[in-house]
Amino acid sequence: MSPAQVPASEQVEIDLGDRSYPILIGAALLDAPGTWAGVPASTQAVIVSNTTVAPLYAARLRAAIAARHRSVDLVVLPDGEAHKDWQTLNLIFDSLLAKACDRKTVLYALGGGVVGDMTGFAAASYMRGVPFVQVPTTLLAQVDSSVGGKTAINHPLGKNMIGAFYQPRLVVCDLTTLATLPPRELSAGLAEVIKYGPIADMEFLGWIEQNIAGLLARDTALLAHAVKRSCEIKAQVVGHDERESGLRAILNFGHTFGHAIEAGLGYGEWLHGEAVGCGMVMALQLSQRLGLVDEAFAQRVTALIARAGLPVVGPRLGAARYLELMQVDKKAEGGEIKFVLIDRPGHATVRGAPDGLVREVIEHCTQGA
Amino acid sequence: MSPAQVPASEQVEIDLGDRSYPILIGAALLDAPGTWAGVPASTQAVIVSNTTVAPLYAARLRAAIAARHRSVDLVVLPDGEAHKDWQTLNLIFDSLLAKACDRKTVLYALGGGVVGDMTGFAAASYMRGVPFVQVPTTLLAQVDSSVGGKTAINHPLGKNMIGAFYQPRLVVCDLTTLATLPPRELSAGLAEVIKYGPIADMEFLGWIEQNIAGLLARDTALLAHAVKRSCEIKAQVVGHDERESGLRAILNFGHTFGHAIEAGLGYGEWLHGEAVGCGMVMALQLSQRLGLVDEAFAQRVTALIARAGLPVVGPRLGAARYLELMQVDKKAEGGEIKFVLIDRPGHATVRGAPDGLVREVIEHCTQGA
Repeated sequence: MSPAQVPASEQVEIDLGDRSYPILIGAALLDAPGTWAGVPASTQAVIVSNTTVAPLYAARLRAAIAARHRSVDLVVLPDGEAHKDWQTLNLIFDSLLAKACDRKTVLYALGGGVVGDMTGFAAASYMRGVPFVQVPTTLLAQVDSSVGGKTAINHPLGKNMIGAFYQPRLVVCDLTTLATLPPRELSAGLAEVIKYGPIADMEFLGWIEQNIAGLLARDTALLAHAVKRSCEIKAQVVGHDERESGLRAILNFGHTFGHAIEAGLGYGEWLHGEAVGCGMVMALQLSQRLGLVDEAFAQRVTALIARAGLPVVGPRLGAARYLELMQVDKKAEGGEIKFVLIDRPGHATVRGAPDGLVREVIEHCTQGA
Repeated sequence: MSPAQVPASEQVEIDLGDRSYPILIGAALLDAPGTWAGVPASTQAVIVSNTTVAPLYAARLRAAIAARHRSVDLVVLPDGEAHKDWQTLNLIFDSLLAKACDRKTVLYALGGGVVGDMTGFAAASYMRGVPFVQVPTTLLAQVDSSVGGKTAINHPLGKNMIGAFYQPRLVVCDLTTLATLPPRELSAGLAEVIKYGPIADMEFLGWIEQNIAGLLARDTALLAHAVKRSCEIKAQVVGHDERESGLRAILNFGHTFGHAIEAGLGYGEWLHGEAVGCGMVMALQLSQRLGLVDEAFAQRVTALIARAGLPVVGPRLGAARYLELMQVDKKAEGGEIKFVLIDRPGHATVRGAPDGLVREVIEHCTQGA
């Protein structure tokens, strides 16, 4: 069977009324013409990618979608979280306007989370909204940005501070593209997969523990299940709370500490998923110190995070700096820092915590670093 | 009766499901505490204004809303369409982040259309969306940006190219603030008022013809009716088409030629309303030359535009330049320029037109300039 004939092995429907869309998950989806049947036909299309991913996949994507658009242009952004800023976003707008792209122009985000977030925000903002398609080529982007419609750029004073909730028309997770992913990024993606266990599904946590070696070896069938289950859980949460007023915040498990790590070290030093992995360890410690879960549970999840190749000890920024950085985080409302904590295995809650306890956790989790 | 006791003389409800909001229209609304009763209470609020309007009204607004927010900050932007860009928008983000504003922070847009558009886009984008209130202090902003949720900034290659559809929680049109409006800006606002006649309501057109002198003399009761009726018509159109897929485009009567005038001269040379006024004259000429309306009708509306103190002869940019500038306009889809034309008095349509005819109109309407 040629790659063009391989069907999508998994599919998740994201049900958001008139903003509903499917996520296709499988091997060799990029080249299969059927993959793109649901994309609105338009005169113009623009593929947005980066200097790492474009040479690998842009020509193949362009060929696959050529039947749906009269012209397909390519915008190549510099690679990395450090470029997730207005200047780089503007490269997309410059290109769209230079080509006189109209409001039916379809944008394709081909790359990891940074490309997806920036392309999504560009699509949300260009002429106040044009259609876009996510083609995530990292595990993290496949499990994290496929669902939820969060798009954003960073500001010097905070991560993801400027953005929009904006849904794609289609998400295509081609697992074959993960073959070129550096091992560190595979682990970073697994952090967001593991996350869904403690917050929502202990059976899934057990499945990941059993299959972590196969996942690290990039077994396609295992990856397909991991991506599908992650998207399903996220979709369930987001379906109840599209604009993040309450429940959806549990998806930020590990992110409050994680964002502080990223901001404190300077974006790009640690990968987002690495910071989230370590952030989960800190959030587990805080949950344990508040008496919400026992030590065995915190140890069990921490051990899995370590087996996935993720850091479990944070950088020594000092407790005061951590607190300062978390204060400006989006989850700090009215000045109080809100943490996503595990209050029983498979269930998360959002609440504040005494500063003293948070300082203890930071001291404990950054020792030996 | 003290100003604080003056009730809103008019009110228009904008019905958009869970994004519905009221427009209050009346004299001395700014200082009346009851005006602000519907605004979400929050710890932080930020008034965004400009160097012209802030000295006149910011202190009064701050005093009026002080009961609803623990802290009220003020961001003063440079005045004018020339500053409706990313750099100026970023002054708002810088301030919000420097003050660690959370996602419940309420933004108040105090000023004309530029302040409203930028504050609205900042509110749409800051942390992916915070509540905002429009306090338009120009006639144009009161009739044009009160309804529709259009927010945007300009790009060097096009006007309003980057933005969002984002609804305010409340719009307060205090007619008393129009006392400080320069005469040129009053006329510019009347352009958008007049617009609603030919596209939707010939009775309203007759009313404006009868009352144009009183409107120019800033009679509060006449202004209240003009603002209310304009908002009602716009609300009716927008209610059917929130995201501008079809019908809503008729609101852009005069805007295709108008945007070309603004872009061709450089933003800020002509006021937006002046360009729209002259753009309506050109669109009427095109409608007439296509045989959609007769000469008497085109002359009648052109005469009213002139009586309102608006230019009816366009700048001589050359037909080629006009066409080039209109090509990149948002209404050009798949390369064809779409014009909003009057196909019978009180009714508009959106369609293309032969280039030769468009050139004739441009030649005709820019002679003698």
